[in-house]
Amino acid sequence: MSAFERLSINTATIKKASLAEALDLSVAAGLSHIGLWRDKVAEVGLDMAVEMVKASGLQVSSLCRGGFLTAADGPGQAAALADNKAAILEAKALGTTEIIMVVGGLPDFSVAPGAVDGGGGKGAADSAVQTGGKDLVLARHRVADRLAELVPFALEHGVRLVLEALHPMYAADRAVLSTLGQALDLAAPHPAAAVGVVVDTFHVWWDPSLREQIARAGAEGRIASYQVCDFNLPIAADALLSRGFMGDGVIDFASIGRWVAEAGYDGIVEVEIFNEDIWNLPYAEVMDTVKARYAELVAPHLG
Amino acid sequence: MSAFERLSINTATIKKASLAEALDLSVAAGLSHIGLWRDKVAEVGLDMAVEMVKASGLQVSSLCRGGFLTAADGPGQAAALADNKAAILEAKALGTTEIIMVVGGLPDFSVAPGAVDGGGGKGAADSAVQTGGKDLVLARHRVADRLAELVPFALEHGVRLVLEALHPMYAADRAVLSTLGQALDLAAPHPAAAVGVVVDTFHVWWDPSLREQIARAGAEGRIASYQVCDFNLPIAADALLSRGFMGDGVIDFASIGRWVAEAGYDGIVEVEIFNEDIWNLPYAEVMDTVKARYAELVAPHLG
Repeated sequence: MSAFERLSINTATIKKASLAEALDLSVAAGLSHIGLWRDKVAEVGLDMAVEMVKASGLQVSSLCRGGFLTAADGPGQAAALADNKAAILEAKALGTTEIIMVVGGLPDFSVAPGAVDGGGGKGAADSAVQTGGKDLVLARHRVADRLAELVPFALEHGVRLVLEALHPMYAADRAVLSTLGQALDLAAPHPAAAVGVVVDTFHVWWDPSLREQIARAGAEGRIASYQVCDFNLPIAADALLSRGFMGDGVIDFASIGRWVAEAGYDGIVEVEIFNEDIWNLPYAEVMDTVKARYAELVAPHLG
Repeated sequence: MSAFERLSINTATIKKASLAEALDLSVAAGLSHIGLWRDKVAEVGLDMAVEMVKASGLQVSSLCRGGFLTAADGPGQAAALADNKAAILEAKALGTTEIIMVVGGLPDFSVAPGAVDGGGGKGAADSAVQTGGKDLVLARHRVADRLAELVPFALEHGVRLVLEALHPMYAADRAVLSTLGQALDLAAPHPAAAVGVVVDTFHVWWDPSLREQIARAGAEGRIASYQVCDFNLPIAADALLSRGFMGDGVIDFASIGRWVAEAGYDGIVEVEIFNEDIWNLPYAEVMDTVKARYAELVAPHLG
């Protein structure tokens, strides 16, 4: 594939577009892939979404998102397993092998699984001290336990659980998984066909062990996606929305792109940007800017 | 020392108080130590500050801050060395062996060394791509080089350069040093009497290798300070000010305190909180709340 053929727009980048609009925009932009969020699929229903994707001729590069595996109570854990099995089946129906997993935060602070773009967490819960709801180590053990329970189902359906390390800003309310190395440790007991990792520049650019862990991810055959967007300064008032077009922030796409290429990754590169200002731009302008910045700042370093 | 005798208030917590007021408040609260920022010292001049501290009977637990070592140009590097030598001499004069080092961000985004409470960084600089100003790896090499140049001067004056890993939110504009493990790697070539580390809960609570790295820091004799405050959610609109009183956020002080105690640290515990709402409270109320939360949430776990 040429560098341009590797580009895919994640629907979160044009969050206000309908699924039909997002598919049309991607086709019009000359792309061959699209990254989907489950809320876009849910808007029309899975069967209709499958038909629409098929008619568009696009391939689905990934489905966002499963995860939220940190519940400490039995019913919460059962609900998480059921939701993730549903997500695996949705991914399979949509023709992608990659389901992106945001593993969830501390039980007393985690946002709900369906939250696409909410603000921070729930805020301090009075019960946090009593329930052990602030214990990160325990929460991480529960993620490992739930992941092990999901792996056979994922393998059976040919879908890979793709662990996403989130920026440590989100360790309490979205993901107790904060580094690529930690994601690879969590994946280690399972085959690479069942558990992968995503390298998302926004989340991992700061990591002093990034080069080493990208190389490790490549050697282990676990890089399922390379997601790019920038980290804007100053951090947005709603920290979740501090992503930017490549080039607008602080990230060194040359170094990270080179490391990903050196690790042997030659798959799809998804652009996923949460940014209120970008969501308010005309969709076509967003697509044009993404293509231009990708060509200028990302593609030259992909090997 | 009893747990209460180990408590020290950093002047950043009562930022609007003068040095005289901060000293009086600490004495009135029954404390034996105080943590100072250089701006408070500069307000009255070093000689006067030394006299005032002596008259108060308090010991200075640490001086904040040296650092900002990432300049890529000769004049910037010379200025950084001169400023850090001045900070070392100030620490010595004030009777503390510990100068806290915030190592600086990417050259094109780093705030100025004197900025106590500013917002985010400078924002994207047009020249960033051209100057290599986004290269984190190079910036970290420059920190190591400047540190090596400062070590002999620090040893000569009996002052320890205390490396502070900052939360990865600040990797671009304040510190390219983001984890305790990275701080210990940076310290490794130098004697423990010359280069130490601080464990600041706000910055490191999320780190999956925290327990292991605290143990390592203890074994290497490098823990120079344990600083406590909480990480509030949602993250404040100015992310620098998202610190809170212990108990108001997401941090598990029981686990981290136990790890610090297990690592053999039995020194001062500083409370350093940047929070606009707390700065606007009556100083006495801040002191009372800090003492109460410390007694309830921190002291019981210090061994």
